[in-house]
Order: sequence, then structure tokens, then C-alpha cells
Amino acid sequence: MLEETIRRIGSLDYKAMEEARKHQDRLAIPLGSLGRFHEFSIRLSGITGVPRPRIRDIGVITMAGDHGIAAKGVSRFPQEVTREMVANFAKGGAAINVLSRHAGARLTVVDMGVAGPEVNVEMKDNTMVRYLSRKIASGTADISEGPAMTYTQAINALEAGIRVFMEEKDRGLDAVGTGDMGIANTTPSSAIASVILNINPEHVVNRGTGIDTAALENKVRMVARAIEVNRPNPDDALDILSKLGGFEIGGIAGVILAACAHRVPVVVDGFISTAAAVLASKFHPNVKDFLFSGHQSAVEGHGEMLGALGLKPMIDLGMRLGEGTGAVLGLSILAAASKITTEMLTFEEAEVSQPDSRP
Amino acid sequence: MLEETIRRIGSLDYKAMEEARKHQDRLAIPLGSLGRFHEFSIRLSGITGVPRPRIRDIGVITMAGDHGIAAKGVSRFPQEVTREMVANFAKGGAAINVLSRHAGARLTVVDMGVAGPEVNVEMKDNTMVRYLSRKIASGTADISEGPAMTYTQAINALEAGIRVFMEEKDRGLDAVGTGDMGIANTTPSSAIASVILNINPEHVVNRGTGIDTAALENKVRMVARAIEVNRPNPDDALDILSKLGGFEIGGIAGVILAACAHRVPVVVDGFISTAAAVLASKFHPNVKDFLFSGHQSAVEGHGEMLGALGLKPMIDLGMRLGEGTGAVLGLSILAAASKITTEMLTFEEAEVSQPDSRP
Repeated sequence: MLEETIRRIGSLDYKAMEEARKHQDRLAIPLGSLGRFHEFSIRLSGITGVPRPRIRDIGVITMAGDHGIAAKGVSRFPQEVTREMVANFAKGGAAINVLSRHAGARLTVVDMGVAGPEVNVEMKDNTMVRYLSRKIASGTADISEGPAMTYTQAINALEAGIRVFMEEKDRGLDAVGTGDMGIANTTPSSAIASVILNINPEHVVNRGTGIDTAALENKVRMVARAIEVNRPNPDDALDILSKLGGFEIGGIAGVILAACAHRVPVVVDGFISTAAAVLASKFHPNVKDFLFSGHQSAVEGHGEMLGALGLKPMIDLGMRLGEGTGAVLGLSILAAASKITTEMLTFEEAEVSQPDSRP
Repeated sequence: MLEETIRRIGSLDYKAMEEARKHQDRLAIPLGSLGRFHEFSIRLSGITGVPRPRIRDIGVITMAGDHGIAAKGVSRFPQEVTREMVANFAKGGAAINVLSRHAGARLTVVDMGVAGPEVNVEMKDNTMVRYLSRKIASGTADISEGPAMTYTQAINALEAGIRVFMEEKDRGLDAVGTGDMGIANTTPSSAIASVILNINPEHVVNRGTGIDTAALENKVRMVARAIEVNRPNPDDALDILSKLGGFEIGGIAGVILAACAHRVPVVVDGFISTAAAVLASKFHPNVKDFLFSGHQSAVEGHGEMLGALGLKPMIDLGMRLGEGTGAVLGLSILAAASKITTEMLTFEEAEVSQPDSRP
């Protein structure tokens, strides 16, 4: 299933993009004056193969998992916060709930590997949230001591992500955003980025939820040790995921691969989601063509990953929360780009005079 | 009425801001991780005087006017485009219509001084647009030859803006965005900015809708000549408006002053709206405390004005269209900030564990 998904990933539709470009130029505005909205619209056409694509059904998939490395003091928060926040998502009280409702996006929360038994979720009717348990295991092993998970678990995480995407697609999904929850998960994300981008851990490791300088130095050491102990093959995405990953990171990479295979635009959130995108792009080089970066995270190292993917974030509001909060703001901008393409009148339709000569 | 409005402008409510700050710190997220959303929420409290303010009813007021200076070749577009675009706004086919519907914002389009007779508008039922004719005159006089308008017309423009705001407020308005339409109106805006900020015209004049280099040089000369011919008093906002202004610029400044007086947050659009904000802040120094900058315009000179007002734009998507398109995107972000404040659960409410020690 993983191989079939990867094989299915194609190229942008350049013919649709050319038609989209021509349409943008006919809109009753000074040429190019909607800035990056033109770029977004044109790439939406390339992804969907439709010159004037409709992005109506939007959804965020937020995946949660725990990490053995949490025992090494890499986060300020206790591990049970992952579980508590999953319960908060299900109740509708977290930032991603608020911003998803604001953007008119569905939210799907997936337990990919929260430590301990099933999360006790109390769903409410009015929250637009769907909760799924796709637990691979009760948290990963400590990557500073050995591999995070087995190869089979890594494949299972990716395929769980693919399946969640397919279920959501069946409910109608014109664009998807990714999100994460997992105490300590900036640590495996930093390790993945360090290996794939071939940069020193100290340039991608950051303060995450707000650790102090001593803890930051410890975190750099832990990432370096995880790479040293595991020696992942930098050209083998599955090897990297199994040795350094997290279940939610594998799940997000699976969502991304499936969305690319089915030509659905993906808005990637911040540091953790972008690490998953870097991993996914290692499975197939065309992945980056189907991605948008929702926002620039305030944590260090995010810019390096975006640079490697060739992505320029849509917004920069200094956020560093995860959950999909940056992705859902970007989804709203993509939906707006689609409406500009489908609802605005051209010079001719609006009977607006054009300049005597176009530059 | 103008004087009464200005007299009514107060200060931020620092007590409400302090309560808002405390509430932000209790939200079940790592401290400060929602970045500028915290800043927006806290200032919303300072403006409204409410620790957890609700921003539900949002609206954009887009003001249109024509400019005598258009005869001097400062724009690529013929003057009739102002009229044609007002008709397009009324029909619901312009970018500001699309983005207002996307953001759930009402749109009010005001003819403040379009050249020629009343615009023939065909309203449609489903477009959330209100159209008002508050025409001061059939376009301004050519500012490179003499004053744009009389003192009485300048006061009338400002007071028309105040009245339009009050009407909208009576319909329910928790935050307002400003927008403009007027062929050649970057020229008077540049002149106003040049005088108030005391900077050389060549540093604020830009290519507007996309003029070539020869036309840009002509535009710089026209702005310099307008200042030389009119010799506006840089400390007298009314003198500046009457000599260099536009009717829509005066109207927008009136909307801003009235919103400040009634403690309603204002999201300012790009170059023209920001020039109106610079003008409004010359009437009362506290005006800037009530303003948000919706976006960074791609045209030169906008950054200088924002700097003078101490405003940092919310988004930067390379837009340079006007109409209120940047403002309405910012209004949506303000509404999201309000929902974060009013709908998110705290650590206690969500039963989420906190770090052992906060930094």
C-alpha cells in the first residue's frame, strides 16, 4: 500500500497551470496586484489539474504520539500532556479547535501512539471534531538509546496515515492541513532534519515549548547521540523514520504521501509537520510540488527545512504551537485563492476599462 | 461634529490589557506560543476596555473618489475605471467582494467623489454589499495646479466618513476595515505622506498599478510640484487634506477618527488607507493605538508610513490592490484572536498539566 501510494505520485499539470495563469491575467485588477494569491491559484491548478479549482471542503488532520526521549528532559512539559491535550482536542477547547471552526475546517484527531491506554475522550456534538484511535504502540522507544520503532511499526504508521487521509477524502476533502501533538516531538523532528538536510544538530534543535539554555544544550546532545547510536542511512526514509521518528511523524508523512498521490493540496504546519514533509519528500522528489507552508514557525531550524523543500510560508505571526494551527490559517488562505479564481469577474465580465498598453 | 469626535478619542484601557495578559498566560499552551495572537488579543482589550472581547460583526468600508491629477499621466488606467469598479463592487464581482464573503465581513461601498454623475449601480441580493452615495464633488482639482478641495469640502469628507461609520456601528460593528478605490490616488497619498513624515517624495512615490520608469519620474515631479504649489502646513491635518487630499482619503480618515472615538478597532489596508491613517493620527496622537495594519503592501513607501505609526503588518502576501483586500484578511485574523480569547480553555478548565516551573 505504501509502495503503491508512492508510485502514484505524479507531476504538476503544466497545461492547467498555463490556463490558470492566463485567467489570473484577465481578472479586473492591475496585473499581478494580488501578489502571492496568483502563485497559490496557479499551483492549485497544477496540483488538481483544473484551471479554476474549487477548494471548498478543507480539513486538518492532527496526529498525536509520545516519545521515549521525553524521559531525558528534552521538554518542559510532563509526558501526560500529550494525552490531556488529545482529550482537550476531542472536547473542542484547544487552539486548533478554535482556529478550525474559524476557518470552516473539519478537524480529525488521531491517536497514533500516545503512551498508556486508550485516551478517554468525551466528544461533544457541536465541535466539528472527529477522533480516531490508530495507536501503533504506547509511545516510541528512547532514540538516544536505540531505534524509535521497528520497520514494521514505521510502515504501519505511514499506512495508517494513508488510510486516515483516504477516509477523509471519501468524506470530501479539497485541501488538507497537517498538525501534531506530542510532548518531546521537536527532538525526533530535529534529528530527522539533521540527517536528511545533513546539518549539525545545533542548527536545527530549538527551545520547543520553552526550555532553558542548559536543557537546550542537553537536547542538542540527545539529538547528536540519537544519530550516533542509530546511524540512519540518510538516503533511506524508512530507515530514518524507524530509527529517529515518532508515530505521529510517520502518520503525518503518510497523510502527505497519500494527498500527493491523489492530487490534493497539502498545507504543512510548523516544525514537526515540516520534518514529516522533509521525510515524505525523501520517499518521492515530487512531494514538495504538492505542498504549501502554512506559516513560519518562531522556532529555529524551521527555516532550514522550508529552504530544503523550496517552500515560502504564507504567514508569519510568530507562532510556535503546532497542533495544525499554522496549517489551518494557510488552508483558509488557499480557500480564498480558490474563490478569487472562481468568483472574481474579469475585465470583460465586469465591463472595466483596461490600460492602453500592458507592460 | 469633527471636533467632538476628535475630543472623544481616549487612551487604551491598561487595566483591561493587564487582565487580558493574565488570561493569555493561563491558556493551555506553552507560554506565548500563539505569537502575535497574544499581542492582538491584549490590544483588542485595551481598545474595547473588555478583558475578553468578542469580535463577531466585522465590516469593511471601501471609499471611492477621483483625482484631478489623473490628467497628468500618473496612472496606467483611465479615470473611468473608478466608476466602473464601484459598479463592480456593487455587483459583487471584485476581489474585495470575494475576500469579504470569505471572511464573513460586510462590505460598504461609498461614493465619496467619483467624477461625473451618480454611478449606476445594479445591486444583487446575495452579495453582502451596501452602497452609499456621499459624493462631495465630481473628483478633486489637480493638486499640481492648486488645492485639491476647499476647507469646507475637506470637513465634509471627514464628517461623511464619521457618519458612515456611525451608521455601520448602529448595524453592529465590532471591528472595521478600511478600503479605497480611486484612479491616481497613490499620488495624493504619496504627497500626504511626504509632508507629514517629512520625507522626500521620491522615497514614497511608487509604481502604483504598474507605471513604467518614465511615468514614475513624472509622478515624483507631480508630487513635488503639488507640495511646492500648495505649501501645506505640515502640522495642520485639515490644511494638508484640503490641499493634497482626495475625498475618499478624507472619508477614510473620518471613519478612522470615529472608530477611535467609539473604541472600535480599525484594520487599515495598504498605501492609501495608511496615508489616511497618518492623516488621522495628525488630528489626535492616540489614533495609532486603535489601529492594526492588515498587510504589508508591495508598493514602496508603505513601510515608511507604517514605521511612523509604529504598526507592524499582520500579513505580507505581496498584494498591492487596495479596495480593502489587505484589511479584510487582517479583520479575519482579529476575529480569530478574539475567539482564542473567548473560546479556548485554560490549563485548569482543560485539566492539562503545567510545567513544574514557568520561566
